Amino acid sequence: MKYCSQCGAVVALKTPPADNRPRYICDSCETIHYQNPKVVAGCLVEANDGRILLCRRAIEPRYGYWTLPAGFMELGETTIEAALRETLEEAEARVQLDGLFAVFNLPHVDQVYMMFRSRLLDGRFGAGDESLEASLFSQDAIPWQELAFSTIYHTLRLYYEDQAHGRYRVHTGDIIKLDEGRYELRSGPAV
Amino acid sequence: MKYCSQCGAVVALKTPPADNRPRYICDSCETIHYQNPKVVAGCLVEANDGRILLCRRAIEPRYGYWTLPAGFMELGETTIEAALRETLEEAEARVQLDGLFAVFNLPHVDQVYMMFRSRLLDGRFGAGDESLEASLFSQDAIPWQELAFSTIYHTLRLYYEDQAHGRYRVHTGDIIKLDEGRYELRSGPAV
Repeated sequence: MKYCSQCGAVVALKTPPADNRPRYICDSCETIHYQNPKVVAGCLVEANDGRILLCRRAIEPRYGYWTLPAGFMELGETTIEAALRETLEEAEARVQLDGLFAVFNLPHVDQVYMMFRSRLLDGRFGAGDESLEASLFSQDAIPWQELAFSTIYHTLRLYYEDQAHGRYRVHTGDIIKLDEGRYELRSGPAV
Repeated sequence: MKYCSQCGAVVALKTPPADNRPRYICDSCETIHYQNPKVVAGCLVEANDGRILLCRRAIEPRYGYWTLPAGFMELGETTIEAALRETLEEAEARVQLDGLFAVFNLPHVDQVYMMFRSRLLDGRFGAGDESLEASLFSQDAIPWQELAFSTIYHTLRLYYEDQAHGRYRVHTGDIIKLDEGRYELRSGPAV
């Protein structure tokens, strides 16, 4: 950030009075420009036969890799509305929402990732504009080596672990970047 | 938003190609300025004797009303780090985190509210810069009529309901603004 989005003057990075971290401040109109993490919301969609809906990405980053439908929450939305919208946009799927499943923090990219369990409503799905294809996968067919993101891998892994234990929980954790292309999930409390 | 924060040119509100909603766009440097909801994180802190830690607000909005320690998540933080930091800043309390308790959407102010259950570590607490006082309350002493926000009311109400049922769950829901000063919780799935 270089200019004030309210008045166009040059901003300076400094700590406001009664604050404890630097912010972009406009000395001209006195606006303090706070910056905050963003929420990514999406759905783990289960079909009637238990298979899971994945989309192959038609956009960067991770073009060509498989993902669960998810994307940035918009102004005016709830997290569930965002998850349902992304599922419709990316996988052309209407779903019945079952509950929150995972909350992962990604501090290296300032994101909070919220995934909901859901069931495919009418069996129909397809490739939205941001997907090359959409397809259903049984557990032994999941393309584990071709998943787009660490968040997707851990969401699916925890889902099958919970399924084997007969109870879905809410999982929390932090995805920590170790070095380029290597990430680790540090699990928080599951409820 | 009137000016581009990257180059200082005037921005225009229009829908980018391959998008479906208007964004502030800079025609000069081509930056698209996305705006997204913010996360508020906080702690419901239980003392050894079961009493709950509340703070009386020294800032607007709702100056003088009681709240749970909570505030905006900062860049680089996880939700848990934000909740612990706010608890230390507003209530001068160090806590042991037990788990996620509530995720409330507040679409009228573009916020997602995440509250964690926790226990007071060493019995010490106090009024931080943004608090007039901090105090422990038993269930029958909670100042229900003097709580700062609807989110705080519902977090406390659901906490005591869960406690009566012998199991804490993760609650989701949307706080909907009905009219000035009147709000309603539309509960989503609890897990």
